[in-house]
Amino acid sequence: MTDERTGLWLIGARGSVATTVAAGLALITAGGAAPDGLVTEQPELAGAHLVPLGHLVLGGHDVTDVPLVKRAAQLADAGVIPHAALALVSDELDRTCHRIRHGHRDGEERQADAVERLAGDIRAFAEAESLARVVVVNVSSTEPVVVAHPAHAALDALEQAWAAGESPLPASSVYAAAAFTAGAAFVDFTPSTGARLPALEQLAQRHGVPWGGSDGKTGETLVKSVLAPMFAARSLRVRSWAGTNLLGGGDGATLADPEAMESKARSKARGLEAMLGHPVDGPVHIDNIADLGDWKTAWDHLTFSGFLGTRMSMQFTWQGCDSSLAAPLVIDLARLLDLAARRGETGPLPALGFFFKDPVGSDEHRLFEQHRILTEWATAS
Amino acid sequence: MTDERTGLWLIGARGSVATTVAAGLALITAGGAAPDGLVTEQPELAGAHLVPLGHLVLGGHDVTDVPLVKRAAQLADAGVIPHAALALVSDELDRTCHRIRHGHRDGEERQADAVERLAGDIRAFAEAESLARVVVVNVSSTEPVVVAHPAHAALDALEQAWAAGESPLPASSVYAAAAFTAGAAFVDFTPSTGARLPALEQLAQRHGVPWGGSDGKTGETLVKSVLAPMFAARSLRVRSWAGTNLLGGGDGATLADPEAMESKARSKARGLEAMLGHPVDGPVHIDNIADLGDWKTAWDHLTFSGFLGTRMSMQFTWQGCDSSLAAPLVIDLARLLDLAARRGETGPLPALGFFFKDPVGSDEHRLFEQHRILTEWATAS
Amino acid sequence: MTDERTGLWLIGARGSVATTVAAGLALITAGGAAPDGLVTEQPELAGAHLVPLGHLVLGGHDVTDVPLVKRAAQLADAGVIPHAALALVSDELDRTCHRIRHGHRDGEERQADAVERLAGDIRAFAEAESLARVVVVNVSSTEPVVVAHPAHAALDALEQAWAAGESPLPASSVYAAAAFTAGAAFVDFTPSTGARLPALEQLAQRHGVPWGGSDGKTGETLVKSVLAPMFAARSLRVRSWAGTNLLGGGDGATLADPEAMESKARSKARGLEAMLGHPVDGPVHIDNIADLGDWKTAWDHLTFSGFLGTRMSMQFTWQGCDSSLAAPLVIDLARLLDLAARRGETGPLPALGFFFKDPVGSDEHRLFEQHRILTEWATAS
Amino acid sequence: MTDERTGLWLIGARGSVATTVAAGLALITAGGAAPDGLVTEQPELAGAHLVPLGHLVLGGHDVTDVPLVKRAAQLADAGVIPHAALALVSDELDRTCHRIRHGHRDGEERQADAVERLAGDIRAFAEAESLARVVVVNVSSTEPVVVAHPAHAALDALEQAWAAGESPLPASSVYAAAAFTAGAAFVDFTPSTGARLPALEQLAQRHGVPWGGSDGKTGETLVKSVLAPMFAARSLRVRSWAGTNLLGGGDGATLADPEAMESKARSKARGLEAMLGHPVDGPVHIDNIADLGDWKTAWDHLTFSGFLGTRMSMQFTWQGCDSSLAAPLVIDLARLLDLAARRGETGPLPALGFFFKDPVGSDEHRLFEQHRILTEWATAS
Ligand SMILES: NC(=O)c1ccc[n+]([C@@H]2O[C@H](COP(=O)([O-])OP(=O)(O)OC[C@H]3O[C@@H](n4cnc5c(N)ncnc54)[C@H](O)[C@@H]3O)[C@@H](O)[C@H]2O)c1
Ligand SMILES: NC(=O)c1ccc[n+]([C@@H]2O[C@H](COP(=O)([O-])OP(=O)(O)OC[C@H]3O[C@@H](n4cnc5c(N)ncnc54)[C@H](O)[C@@H]3O)[C@@H](O)[C@H]2O)c1
Ligand SMILES: NC(=O)c1ccc[n+]([C@@H]2O[C@H](COP(=O)([O-])OP(=O)(O)OC[C@H]3O[C@@H](n4cnc5c(N)ncnc54)[C@H](O)[C@@H]3O)[C@@H](O)[C@H]2O)c1
Ligand SMILES: NC(=O)c1ccc[n+]([C@@H]2O[C@H](COP(=O)([O-])OP(=O)(O)OC[C@H]3O[C@@H](n4cnc5c(N)ncnc54)[C@H](O)[C@@H]3O)[C@@H](O)[C@H]2O)c1
Ligand code: NA
Ligand code: NA
Repeated sequence: MTDERTGLWLIGARGSVATTVAAGLALITAGGAAPDGLVTEQPELAGAHLVPLGHLVLGGHDVTDVPLVKRAAQLADAGVIPHAALALVSDELDRTCHRIRHGHRDGEERQADAVERLAGDIRAFAEAESLARVVVVNVSSTEPVVVAHPAHAALDALEQAWAAGESPLPASSVYAAAAFTAGAAFVDFTPSTGARLPALEQLAQRHGVPWGGSDGKTGETLVKSVLAPMFAARSLRVRSWAGTNLLGGGDGATLADPEAMESKARSKARGLEAMLGHPVDGPVHIDNIADLGDWKTAWDHLTFSGFLGTRMSMQFTWQGCDSSLAAPLVIDLARLLDLAARRGETGPLPALGFFFKDPVGSDEHRLFEQHRILTEWATAS
Repeated sequence: MTDERTGLWLIGARGSVATTVAAGLALITAGGAAPDGLVTEQPELAGAHLVPLGHLVLGGHDVTDVPLVKRAAQLADAGVIPHAALALVSDELDRTCHRIRHGHRDGEERQADAVERLAGDIRAFAEAESLARVVVVNVSSTEPVVVAHPAHAALDALEQAWAAGESPLPASSVYAAAAFTAGAAFVDFTPSTGARLPALEQLAQRHGVPWGGSDGKTGETLVKSVLAPMFAARSLRVRSWAGTNLLGGGDGATLADPEAMESKARSKARGLEAMLGHPVDGPVHIDNIADLGDWKTAWDHLTFSGFLGTRMSMQFTWQGCDSSLAAPLVIDLARLLDLAARRGETGPLPALGFFFKDPVGSDEHRLFEQHRILTEWATAS
Repeated sequence: MTDERTGLWLIGARGSVATTVAAGLALITAGGAAPDGLVTEQPELAGAHLVPLGHLVLGGHDVTDVPLVKRAAQLADAGVIPHAALALVSDELDRTCHRIRHGHRDGEERQADAVERLAGDIRAFAEAESLARVVVVNVSSTEPVVVAHPAHAALDALEQAWAAGESPLPASSVYAAAAFTAGAAFVDFTPSTGARLPALEQLAQRHGVPWGGSDGKTGETLVKSVLAPMFAARSLRVRSWAGTNLLGGGDGATLADPEAMESKARSKARGLEAMLGHPVDGPVHIDNIADLGDWKTAWDHLTFSGFLGTRMSMQFTWQGCDSSLAAPLVIDLARLLDLAARRGETGPLPALGFFFKDPVGSDEHRLFEQHRILTEWATAS
Repeated sequence: MTDERTGLWLIGARGSVATTVAAGLALITAGGAAPDGLVTEQPELAGAHLVPLGHLVLGGHDVTDVPLVKRAAQLADAGVIPHAALALVSDELDRTCHRIRHGHRDGEERQADAVERLAGDIRAFAEAESLARVVVVNVSSTEPVVVAHPAHAALDALEQAWAAGESPLPASSVYAAAAFTAGAAFVDFTPSTGARLPALEQLAQRHGVPWGGSDGKTGETLVKSVLAPMFAARSLRVRSWAGTNLLGGGDGATLADPEAMESKARSKARGLEAMLGHPVDGPVHIDNIADLGDWKTAWDHLTFSGFLGTRMSMQFTWQGCDSSLAAPLVIDLARLLDLAARRGETGPLPALGFFFKDPVGSDEHRLFEQHRILTEWATAS
């Protein structure tokens, strides 16, 4: 490994996940915490020679101005970050805070201009910090489901629409376009559209950058991705699978919006059928319970039948801290996208399915199969 | 495949598991039910050319006299077997009933004589039914933990003890000895000692037969064997794992005996440390709740820590019908042991770990790894 | 007690609840089962001298033709009714079956004619069976939320609308009108409108009959009605209460219709605020899971704060057989409405709140308070 | 109300519950928190004219020396006390800390001397702080089940044993004796023996003081005390009730000792049979899970049968902070014992059953009945 440094540019840089990433990275590199929860610290991935944690530099876009130090204090009160850490990381958080630029909101500027401006921010960050590469990770609020538009279908159609002053992309895709334009890798940790449009795939190809997504797999879906294969391995037929997710915080409030919820729920439902080989009855609810803050409680109930058709059932309750679960995966993804870029890989990265509810370029949802694929890919030479 | 037939000789042949095996096999081969729950019917194992279900012939030992038809009716009332099936299978159950011989209970006869008598029963069964091979499966009541005895350590010590009129073996080991003496494969679906004594391993070797065990993995432990690796794959540290099992029926009553419970609880605890790589705080309880009959409710609670040490938790409740879960695995094991015997394999079979809480000859407890090993072994040529 | 007999006329007489009522009453009076689940068999209510179970005669309306014996067989397969009971009760079910008349569906006839026809059926039943009184209980499918109509506001407006050939009432209210017109008491076990319109209240008054409702309290809401007061008694502040109800069967299918669900969910939410004295965050979902049949699984999650504001939580899972829980309450209500009618009480009966999610004429939702009120009312002389 | 002040003397004054009492009382009287969780602040009890919170003065005995401020900081880290409160209450905690005297441990001194010494501490406290009355509350570690001794049976036997230099009492009873000797009321919040020996009852009578207990009802048993009556009110027969309690902290470690656990489990089981009128199958486990600290997770599973014997089930999971739940009840009890003493009541107080798993002088375990009795007693003039 050289002493090259890599930029991690967060969209939604003042949100819960992003602040946990910033505080955690500062704390770990300062020796104040072990790298728990980081998949990329496992011995299996040692051969991948990933960028060291201390060589990651943070920056990003957001549309609010709240100081990271203040968000970190709130997260400490909520039990996401240890109280004792605040003093240790506040200087580093202030430095990161100064590298956050104003983001993009629909209607505030011409979309073509926005792409240029945001790409400029990323390029300036790379230059100012002398970075070898930049990885852009979207951890901003989930968007409503997007209406189809002809300009999504091809890059030239998109460029014509832009030339005509139109704004056919959702914000997440504007950020993806900016990343690609700046030559940066992009990964979408949210269920938003991001790079998943033919026009943007072509843009990534044009700039020769890799990308990945979508929607970090941190809770209920993670558990599903080992339980569903368990039933299949035992020839037990899953007959229904219902789930309820209770959460508060910024994410809870966003997802309470039925349209955003729809986007999330779809992304959650997709994998089950793929793992079981047949459709399964059962709704998934996402409810905003302000009182729960950053903590999520998910309850799943499933029925299955076995020998001679006998019906049985299983329930589980998952009580996780969403930002704690997401933050290390964001860091993992930054290191792995950096690897892909270093190796010159371009386009969608199906080998990262392990991290996602809705993996691009892959129908494999079984966790251990995904883990095998990931390890193989990362350690290939 | 030739038209060879294989005998499945059940120890505890009138118990819940055995009766479900008998009724289920009769119903499936009569076309009255699909082979749900049978791992050996999966496409992955098609290449193994296992003995067809219709070529299995049942018999066994038990120490009670209750007719199988009566046990089956009780199981139908308890929802284990469909009511409608009773009429369809009663003739076949009567035929099986006639092939059950009186078993062995400690103190009823000299142990050396018992081995001879029981082995004679198995040989007579093979002859009467013109069987190519016999597989003996222990599904009798779980025994108390066994006191060590010098004769366990070597076959010649055992034979000297027998010659001296001693009875150093628990009943499960007497059955294993009888199976080996009759040239039959043996597999222990219970946590009892069975073949797991050096003296018996030598006996199996002398007769050139394969054997497997122990303790069928059907509920809580099955779920553990996918959840523990999930946490490990995500670098989440499991900190405690407590479990409570409520069950009634014959098995519930037996395990209420603190000594037998000890034997079962030990067998359950063993795997967790192996999967996680470190010991984990947390007791496992088994309670007899007569009202639950053959249905088991298990509740597990586990705590884990992630990024920056944040504590989270998960609970699950498993509501399974134990006999429904166990019966197809007993049939699977009969077919797989038959395969091993046909291939001339001898001694313990670590490749069968997929089926067991306490797999002989293996420290691998992760379900999908066990599934891979099983498939590879079964389809190797 | 004289040997007077009372008619129990069920709207939805071929449904799950009605069939369980019919089979259960037949079985209990034949001595084949104890009167478990019947509140009116408690010693506290002995002083009320209620009509004996053997003096209840069943009849009713439905819009399907399925024989009760067939429905009972389905319920036995589903574990609602013991299999062994079927033979014992089939003759009595056939007799009840002959007393079921064709019901009313919107649009099939002029509403004024329908009321006359249905009232005629009830009168004919009373006469044929020499009944002292008839109680009509609505256990038909839950209706969608009803659109307001000016004719709901007063009996004369309703009669003018009828005279003009209009059909302003939902079916449940048509049945209530028919009951009142026939001089029968009426009670609504469903969340439908039933008698809860000023016009119908006036009709009940005109005919001098008592009525009650609405929406039988059998599961999640029953538990709520003791837990919420528990928190209040301990000065613990409930902060959120979310619930998910999974059920199949006819009721599950009906409630899957979002409009009917709305009617049910509203009825469920009402009480919590009344018991706690402040509004509480938290949605209630009702999902149709066909695989669950007549069994309902409800999961509730609630958060509360105590000393110094510390947050805590509780979850419960209720796994009940809805028809088993509802049927004895229907019988209880028939006996209690019969008592009210015998005593000459008229109009809404707030003392029956114990049985309902949405009690008419009462804001008391605390179960034990309701129990006290019920006992006092029933045993008053 | 006059401006009389009352002493609250805590046995185990440096434990979790006691520290939460001290910190909470300081915070509430300083205006830093609302009196949430305090039953004695309910409007129903306003008529009782209880001693104001600001007129309670704390002191106590303990056998360790850890400063209260340090224990409070640990409780803040564990989420029991808000972090922000620490600065506000530290002076008051230091003052309380200075009023804690060295307690008594078996074998450290002659038991008769111990009673004198401890009573002297209580008298000195009353004098130094000019208190009108003192209430002693035992919140020290639960003792093992006590072996019977003839001196327990009568006060003169006890005094003879003491005179002979014997030490027949467990520590909790030594404290009760000291309280009575000092003319103070005594209440046992633990399942230990405390005042529940004929000899001590006579001592309380001799000194004319009231006393109460035993074992604060804060979690699983609280819920039981509303659910069991719910099933009874609906004529549903509870058939089994199994419970598992997971907890860490000092209390978890103590109860992991099987003998202490026995004492607690017995106290928990007693009420169920009383509420249901028949014995119920089902064990209660208490497990020490260090990782849970002061937080307790209890899981209960119960089966019941209803109409026609149909079996159903319910589960609940309670996740409470034990010290948060206990502390306000300790304050409530101090105020209510003070009331009893002020009124000149003596001997056991059955009207306090609302607070206890194992209420002295009462077989009423139903929460709302207990609440009614408490309110009636407290507001009687
Ligand atoms: N935490 C998890 O387990 C998890 C898992 C999967 C996906 N996600 C997704 O990650 C995202 C972040 O979650 P969170 O809890 O941090 O949410 P959050 O609400 O705390 O933070 C979102 C941030 O995005 C910012 N933002 C909103 N619109 C923006 C825009 N147009 N441009 C730039 N910034 C914008 C907001 O100002 C806010 O700071 C969400 O979309 C969530 O669904 C989280
Ligand atoms: N069902 C499961 O999920 C599962 C999983 C793992 C292990 N097991 C084990 O399988 C075994 C069978 O379970 P079950 O539910 O059928 O129990 P069961 O009590 O219904 O049946 C046990 C049978 O063994 C017979 N038996 C007892 N002692 C005997 C002896 N000395 N010789 C011959 N027969 C004897 C009994 O008479 C009875 O018929 C138990 O040991 C159980 O622990 C079951
Ligand atoms: N079971 C419970 O715990 C419970 C609790 C509260 C309320 N309820 C209510 O009780 C009702 C009955 O439940 P169920 O499980 O028996 O449902 P079900 O679907 O099995 O039966 C409903 C019956 O009503 C009949 N019906 C429909 N429209 C009719 C009409 N216009 N006239 C006459 N009959 C008509 C149907 O043909 C059917 O036979 C539902 O409304 C349900 O919401 C049940
Ligand atoms: N918190 C609850 O919900 C609850 C409910 C019912 C009962 N209790 C009981 O309350 C008691 C206190 O619980 P905790 O969580 O504070 O426990 P803890 O272990 O934190 O505190 C107990 C304190 O008692 C002290 N102690 C031990 N032996 C003593 C002695 N001989 N003399 C004086 N002090 C002594 C210890 O030093 C310690 O400071 C326990 O017995 C517990 O079982 C608690
Ligand atoms: Na795998
Ligand atoms: Na009302």
